[in-house]
Amino acid sequence: MQNKITQLFGIQYPIVQGGMIWTSGWRLASAVSNAGGLGLIGAGSMYPEVLREHILKCQKATDKPFGVNIPMLYPDIDKLIDIIIAMGVKIVFTSAGNPKTWTSHLQKNGIIVVHVVSSLKFALKSQEAGVDAIVAEGFEAGGHNGRDETTTLTLIPSVKEKIKTPLIAAGGIATGRAMLATMILGADGVQVGSRFVASDEASSHHLFKEKVIETTEGETHLTLKELVPVRLLKNKFYNDVQAAYNRGATVEELKQVLGRARAKRGMFEGDMDEGELEIGQVSTLIHDIKPAAQIIEDMIREFTEAKDSLDQL
Amino acid sequence: MQNKITQLFGIQYPIVQGGMIWTSGWRLASAVSNAGGLGLIGAGSMYPEVLREHILKCQKATDKPFGVNIPMLYPDIDKLIDIIIAMGVKIVFTSAGNPKTWTSHLQKNGIIVVHVVSSLKFALKSQEAGVDAIVAEGFEAGGHNGRDETTTLTLIPSVKEKIKTPLIAAGGIATGRAMLATMILGADGVQVGSRFVASDEASSHHLFKEKVIETTEGETHLTLKELVPVRLLKNKFYNDVQAAYNRGATVEELKQVLGRARAKRGMFEGDMDEGELEIGQVSTLIHDIKPAAQIIEDMIREFTEAKDSLDQL
Repeated sequence: MQNKITQLFGIQYPIVQGGMIWTSGWRLASAVSNAGGLGLIGAGSMYPEVLREHILKCQKATDKPFGVNIPMLYPDIDKLIDIIIAMGVKIVFTSAGNPKTWTSHLQKNGIIVVHVVSSLKFALKSQEAGVDAIVAEGFEAGGHNGRDETTTLTLIPSVKEKIKTPLIAAGGIATGRAMLATMILGADGVQVGSRFVASDEASSHHLFKEKVIETTEGETHLTLKELVPVRLLKNKFYNDVQAAYNRGATVEELKQVLGRARAKRGMFEGDMDEGELEIGQVSTLIHDIKPAAQIIEDMIREFTEAKDSLDQL
Repeated sequence: MQNKITQLFGIQYPIVQGGMIWTSGWRLASAVSNAGGLGLIGAGSMYPEVLREHILKCQKATDKPFGVNIPMLYPDIDKLIDIIIAMGVKIVFTSAGNPKTWTSHLQKNGIIVVHVVSSLKFALKSQEAGVDAIVAEGFEAGGHNGRDETTTLTLIPSVKEKIKTPLIAAGGIATGRAMLATMILGADGVQVGSRFVASDEASSHHLFKEKVIETTEGETHLTLKELVPVRLLKNKFYNDVQAAYNRGATVEELKQVLGRARAKRGMFEGDMDEGELEIGQVSTLIHDIKPAAQIIEDMIREFTEAKDSLDQL
């Protein structure tokens, strides 16, 4: 299975694990890379020294390629970038910011740069910035998202129509069938987030993992669009946010409701009521917690079976 | 190309044209049916006598199967049902209501019944009501929609996982590639709306058709969730609705902003400012107005090409 994405990263399968805060440390990233995908350390929830430790441990745990994901709204981003370069990381995924800011600096240091977008507009900006690949993430994706609400089924062909840069689909992909479907729509590979939250190696709290596999229809929502739009599970914290909206809260008041360290409290510390629980719509299709390697093996088997059964359509 | 859906309706291709108010009269329905798909007369915008006329003209224009779509919130629905039975229509799509209300009555009169849903919950209710097929319509679809915001990519496998009834995917499907993608996710066929708005035979106003093919990213939105959620184009009317939300309008005030005959004014009479313009996200991928038969031919060709090229994945 060789294509633009496997060749770009030097990996076996075009499956990238999403860099998720409080969830994807070195254990998950190295497990995914060892299984033939591309593992990403999610630096968004790490102090610079913590990131250094995770990179070191990941390098010891795998000799396969792995990367680091950096949300550009991270306050000390230059420190993270320095560490990444100094430690010889070869792949960086940037998100939530302008792709021009860091792309050429990283590339000059021999790093492959991928930018995550949720719209054609930012895909075009990313191509202009010279990124090596683009992740286009639909409305159904968990965590941070865009304001246009374009779903993966519409976004991928829209980006494919205008963009030559290798394209990775994200949002709503937890199975081999969804992987095949989005590749038919024009993607060269997929980025998978929620499915890897429910993995043995994810660093998220076991109560959060168990919540994810119990999630049913309509239990996630894209909210807080006035701050950074984020898809999360409906819990007490979510209800508090909605109550704030209903009383006509200002942006400042919304920030107060959000407070600090909500995501850590929920996803890492396991407070299912007061914590922020970021997850995608596709959690309704995730029914078990299993090793990352098993997730990849199952996806590839299903992908292949679905492809082989197409003659029956 | 034979499967559950082509066999159920006795048609050549598993492509159903969406029954859209002010858009799908006998001309569009018969053109689609003559081209090998299933055409639907959209009864939601027709007085009973107008529906009778459209059925009669459709019967004269095609000897292929066609159907009628009835939104159950139609006030005189019993009159429409009587006409449908009396005139020997063989296929009815019901939407926006309880599938139990009319299914057995229609089936006793020899009619195939399909119910349109936007959630697994209502898909289960539809199966329990004994419908012959289910349309599952994702968040990206134009016009009336559900409150759960589940996208097609998540909804189709969720329904497929729990339901045995033949399944038709809707929302975001305007190309043969999207048709193949949703069938890989578990659908037996597709329902296509927006693409047929931009057809020669659609009865919608030419200014609306031209607006659809010019639509860019983020220009549709699912709004009016307190009344019946509807995806529409952002125009002056939409801005008035948003302004009402921003001043904290009650449901009654929203109804006043909506007023009467907004959809007719926009889609049928061509008032691009004051009218309600219902269309799907996928309009960003529609670039030309062409005959319905050409739409079907192009979709099937692209579907086949995409299927044949999968060996390269």
